[in-house]
Amino acid sequence: MDLKSELEKRHNAFNEYWIKFLPESKPINLYNASRHLTLGGGKRLRPAIAIFTSESVSGSIESVLPFAAALELMHTFTLVHDDIMDKSDMRRNRPTVHIKFGEPTAILAGDFLFAKSFEAMHDLSVNVQIFKKLSYDLIQCVLDICKGQQLDIEFEKRKIVSEAEYIDMITKKTAVLFELAARGGCLIGGGEPEEVTCCANYGLNLGLAFQIWDDYLDISSDEQTLGKDIGNDIRNGKKTLIAVNSLQNATGENKVVLDKLFGNFNATDWDIRRVFEVYKQTGSIEYARKTAIEYINKAKEALTSLRDSDFKEILKGLADYSITREK
Amino acid sequence: MDLKSELEKRHNAFNEYWIKFLPESKPINLYNASRHLTLGGGKRLRPAIAIFTSESVSGSIESVLPFAAALELMHTFTLVHDDIMDKSDMRRNRPTVHIKFGEPTAILAGDFLFAKSFEAMHDLSVNVQIFKKLSYDLIQCVLDICKGQQLDIEFEKRKIVSEAEYIDMITKKTAVLFELAARGGCLIGGGEPEEVTCCANYGLNLGLAFQIWDDYLDISSDEQTLGKDIGNDIRNGKKTLIAVNSLQNATGENKVVLDKLFGNFNATDWDIRRVFEVYKQTGSIEYARKTAIEYINKAKEALTSLRDSDFKEILKGLADYSITREK
Repeated sequence: MDLKSELEKRHNAFNEYWIKFLPESKPINLYNASRHLTLGGGKRLRPAIAIFTSESVSGSIESVLPFAAALELMHTFTLVHDDIMDKSDMRRNRPTVHIKFGEPTAILAGDFLFAKSFEAMHDLSVNVQIFKKLSYDLIQCVLDICKGQQLDIEFEKRKIVSEAEYIDMITKKTAVLFELAARGGCLIGGGEPEEVTCCANYGLNLGLAFQIWDDYLDISSDEQTLGKDIGNDIRNGKKTLIAVNSLQNATGENKVVLDKLFGNFNATDWDIRRVFEVYKQTGSIEYARKTAIEYINKAKEALTSLRDSDFKEILKGLADYSITREK
Repeated sequence: MDLKSELEKRHNAFNEYWIKFLPESKPINLYNASRHLTLGGGKRLRPAIAIFTSESVSGSIESVLPFAAALELMHTFTLVHDDIMDKSDMRRNRPTVHIKFGEPTAILAGDFLFAKSFEAMHDLSVNVQIFKKLSYDLIQCVLDICKGQQLDIEFEKRKIVSEAEYIDMITKKTAVLFELAARGGCLIGGGEPEEVTCCANYGLNLGLAFQIWDDYLDISSDEQTLGKDIGNDIRNGKKTLIAVNSLQNATGENKVVLDKLFGNFNATDWDIRRVFEVYKQTGSIEYARKTAIEYINKAKEALTSLRDSDFKEILKGLADYSITREK
C-alpha cells in the first residue's frame, strides 16, 4: 500500500465529512472566522492517525470520522487562540484569524470551534460507555493543552528549563491529542485493550517527535535566512528543545553569548546569527533531530503487539512521514 | 419559606461543591486566573434556578449540583472572554482576569473553565440518555452564546437594530443558559415532560428579563453620575433595548442628537448627558423597565402547570428578585 495515496483517500473522506460542522451560516463573520483555518488546508495528521488506528483493528473509516472531526476541530481551536496569544500574523500562508477578523471575533471563533468539537462527538455511533469515556478523555486532553500552553508562555520568562520540564510541557501541549487520536481510533475500531494501549503509546511518542521535529524544522529549514520566526523565538526566550539543550551545555564564550542574547528583545539580526552558531557548536540542533528520531522509533516499537496488517505498516510509515515532512 | 434564607442554603451547598473543580494546582497562574472570578462572588443565579427547579419536582439538591456547576463554569468562562473582547477593566469590584493575569493567560483561563464545565457534567448521576441529552444541549447553548456575543459586537457598528433582532441577540447571549438551567434542573429532578417544558419557558423569559433589567440598571442606577460604563456604551453605539427603542422613536431634534452623538467615540460627558435626556424623552428607559417586568410575568405564568409546592413559590420569588436586585 502506498502511504501517499492511502492518506489522500482518508483525507478526502474526512474533508467531505467534517465541513458539515461549519456550513456557511449566520452570523456570517463568526462562521467565516471559524472556517478560515479549517478551509486553509493543514496536514490532518490527527484525523489520519485516528482513522488508520481504527482500520488497523478492522474498524471502518466512516465510524471513526466524527471522532476524527472532533480532534481536528479541537486542534484548530487551539491554533486560533494560540495565534492571538503569540501575536502571530500568518499561518498556513494566510493571515491568522485575528488579523483577518479582529481579535474579539477570533476569540469567539475559537470558542465556537471548541464547542463544535464536542458536538462532533455526538455524531459517533458507539455504545454509550465508549462515548462517555472518549468525551471525558477529550475534556482531559483540552485541560492538558491549556496547561501546556500556559507552561510554554511561562517558560519564556525563565532563565533555565530542564529537558524533563520541556518534555512535560510538550506532552501536554501537543502529544496528549496525538495519544487520544490513536487510542480513541483503536477503541472505536473495536481494538482489544492491549491493542488500545499499543496505539496510545504510538500516538504519544509520535506527538512528542512531531513537536520536537517542528522546532527542528523551524530552525534548520531557515538556516540561510534565519527569518522572522527564528529571530522572534530567540528574542522571546522560547524554550524549544534546541534552546533547552544549548542553554544547558554551553560553556565559556558560548555561555556568555546565550546569557546576553537569548531572551533579549533587542537582539539584532547579527546577534540572532551568533546564537544560531552557539546552537550548532553545542550540538543542540543535531541533538533535537536525533531525539525526534528516537521518539519515532519508540512510536513504531509501540505497535509490536498490534495485530499485523497493511494498516500497521501504514502507521509506521505515517510515523516516519511525520519527521520527514516539510513545513 | 423565606427566599433569602433558602437561597443562602443553596448558595452554600453549591459553593462547597463546585470549588473542587478549581483546586489550587499547577500551573499556578492558570489555576489562579481560573479561580479569580469564581472566588470573587457573583449571584449564582443560574445554579439557584437549576437547584430550585429540581427541588420543585422533588429532586435533591445534591443530585443537581454537578449540572449547576457546569452552568456556572460556562457562565464564568463567557465573562472572562467577554471582558477581553469588551476591554473591561473591572468586574465585581475587582480587576478583570486579563488585567490581573495578562491576556494570554486570560484566554487560556476561559478555555480551561469551558472544559471544566463539561468535566462537571461527568459528575452527574443520571441515566446515560439524560446525560447525553444535557451534554448536547449545553453544547448548543455555548454555540448560541458565541453567536449572541458576535451579534452584540456587530450591532454596535450598525445604525439601526430592530427590537426583534435585539431580542434574538439576548436570547442567544443570555437567555438560553437560563432556559437550560431551568429545563435541566427539572429534568434531573425527575419532572414530567410537561413540567420540563414549563420550567424551560420560565427560564427563557427570566433570562430575557434579566438581561433587559441589567441594561436598565446600568443606566438608571447611574443617573446622577452617568459614569464611565454608560458613557462608553453610548460612545460605542451599544444596542441595549433602551438605545434600540430610542433610536426607533426619536423624532425632530431628538433624532438629530442621536444621529450625531450615539456611537460617536468623541462624544463629551456633556454629549452623553444629552443622549440620556433623549432616552428619557422618548420614554425608552421606562419602556425597558416595563418590558423586563412583562417578561418576568411571563416567566411566572409559565409555571402554571408545574405541581404546586413551596419551591414553585420560591421560583416565582426568584423571578421577582431578579428584577429588583441591585447591581
